Amino acid sequence: MKRPEVQLYVTGGTFDKEYNYITGELYFKDTHLQDMIERGRCTIDLDIKTLMMVDSLEMSEADREIIIHNCKYTKLDKIIITHGTDTIVETAKQIAAVDIPNKTIILMGAMVPYAFGTSSDGFFNLGSALAFVQTLSPGVYIVMNGRCFTSDNVKKNRQTGYFEYLQDQY
Amino acid sequence: MKRPEVQLYVTGGTFDKEYNYITGELYFKDTHLQDMIERGRCTIDLDIKTLMMVDSLEMSEADREIIIHNCKYTKLDKIIITHGTDTIVETAKQIAAVDIPNKTIILMGAMVPYAFGTSSDGFFNLGSALAFVQTLSPGVYIVMNGRCFTSDNVKKNRQTGYFEYLQDQY
Amino acid sequence: MKRPEVQLYVTGGTFDKEYNYITGELYFKDTHLQDMIERGRCTIDLDIKTLMMVDSLEMSEADREIIIHNCKYTKLDKIIITHGTDTIVETAKQIAAVDIPNKTIILMGAMVPYAFGTSSDGFFNLGSALAFVQTLSPGVYIVMNGRCFTSDNVKKNRQTGYFEYLQDQY
Amino acid sequence: MKRPEVQLYVTGGTFDKEYNYITGELYFKDTHLQDMIERGRCTIDLDIKTLMMVDSLEMSEADREIIIHNCKYTKLDKIIITHGTDTIVETAKQIAAVDIPNKTIILMGAMVPYAFGTSSDGFFNLGSALAFVQTLSPGVYIVMNGRCFTSDNVKKNRQTGYFEYLQDQY
Repeated sequence: MKRPEVQLYVTGGTFDKEYNYITGELYFKDTHLQDMIERGRCTIDLDIKTLMMVDSLEMSEADREIIIHNCKYTKLDKIIITHGTDTIVETAKQIAAVDIPNKTIILMGAMVPYAFGTSSDGFFNLGSALAFVQTLSPGVYIVMNGRCFTSDNVKKNRQTGYFEYLQDQY
Repeated sequence: MKRPEVQLYVTGGTFDKEYNYITGELYFKDTHLQDMIERGRCTIDLDIKTLMMVDSLEMSEADREIIIHNCKYTKLDKIIITHGTDTIVETAKQIAAVDIPNKTIILMGAMVPYAFGTSSDGFFNLGSALAFVQTLSPGVYIVMNGRCFTSDNVKKNRQTGYFEYLQDQY
Repeated sequence: MKRPEVQLYVTGGTFDKEYNYITGELYFKDTHLQDMIERGRCTIDLDIKTLMMVDSLEMSEADREIIIHNCKYTKLDKIIITHGTDTIVETAKQIAAVDIPNKTIILMGAMVPYAFGTSSDGFFNLGSALAFVQTLSPGVYIVMNGRCFTSDNVKKNRQTGYFEYLQDQY
Repeated sequence: MKRPEVQLYVTGGTFDKEYNYITGELYFKDTHLQDMIERGRCTIDLDIKTLMMVDSLEMSEADREIIIHNCKYTKLDKIIITHGTDTIVETAKQIAAVDIPNKTIILMGAMVPYAFGTSSDGFFNLGSALAFVQTLSPGVYIVMNGRCFTSDNVKKNRQTGYFEYLQDQY
């Protein structure tokens, strides 16, 4: 049996939120990743595993340990992690602080839930993340807005919702 | 003024088709690329130019000359071309046969029109193409199904609608 | 067991068409009515029966006989028929020419397939048809554009795709 | 100039909520009614007026006075009011308690915001409300779930999100 090409870890975040029509609040049910992969007609062999389903503002240090543990122990060297955008930089930095040699690790998310249809950026971001994970050298990255940021040169602009470099790239 | 990072050429294809509710047929109006870029919250500085709006089965040799001409003469070295999937391989081969040094040229399309909403693969493919164009070395590629194919090792499987390698990659 | 309140007959038409991504043409798979009823959170007890799945330009006299036969023999007195818009007036006239006493029969369709997502009028038309069938006196009607037309005072304007009264209503 | 046929009053509710991608919360921007009317290809001549944009849990008695005032003073005798579902029954009862002769007044809403795309029931409900308002005799009604309820025989089931009759209809 051929080994999958890319490891996909689900941790929650806006990316996978749903609307609860009884309470009017957002919540988590299941991940939409399998649907998205099929709709994208993606032929990359993926191993999708849900580690947790949490809002990233509520992600605990124990949750981050679980993510790091899974990144270390998967036999695959291409890893994508879906993550809420509010603390995605913090998680990326913590993963980068650990010695995980020879693996390309990409964290990604969405500003609008995939379940909200034609206003969501999630499907675009997934396409970008899958492309970057196949081409980037080992390291820890954040993929948002069609760009790839290294974990030591990125911040989320909370006023605009866009990710930015700490230093100008040019 | 800073130069844009990526040149985007529109040529038509299923990607940009619309439904004509009077005739019940598919047709071209305008490209959806600007909408898609905004929805993807993409911060890459793009130069979008519509070269033509044609079904790729009707793409003429003159059309291909126009595409090649534009690839040669743009000052940008990262180029994405939207294209119908039926003859995308033929166009890629013709571009590759021309000497266009130091440019990464990606052809991409969709199996379902972007205008058909939540069943289209176009938005995912655009995310992938924008990522690949930033990371691949110069050459001519086709991006579909989350994968990147070189122009000399790809065919469209007309029974399934998936793109495949001519030779196994492993 | 309680009898259903409304009989729903499916005959095809744009309403239920799908996009075939292999051929690039529109075709019929299954009706979307059950999905639409659930999404509309509709609590009316319906009996949905697919009589045929045809483009109304290809609807034969035998097909119309089947529709009329089913309208006659159902025990329910509220009937909705999904139908392609091109010959919906012709079918309505033929049903009206038959003596089917004490039944409210509504023909309806869509200008854009429901499967094409947020541009389709089908879901709106279904909501209208279900409301009209509960409130109108017996007769044969066409419901489109938020309006109800009697079968003897309606034509499709083929230039605009809107349905119009033959005579002004006011 | 011909008088419009139906008066449409907007008051907010889930129907018109949007997702704020900065805060992750739902909020109001503008009503989607005009878009919905166009998508539904509705040819009824409407007068759309936004009275307020509030969550119905936050609707004040002063807000209800404004609604009642507008129902009284419009010259049109067919009125649709978009309203949040949590207190729609309360508002309907208050309107019914006032003497507004010869007008058909329908309150309607949605369980999922129209902006959330293909999971929303709002477009279906609008189609129903427009049909019922043309056919029902004067009175105050709530239209949800494809049904029409009189204001004195309806409750929202808060466990299921469906509207129900207080007494069985059969």
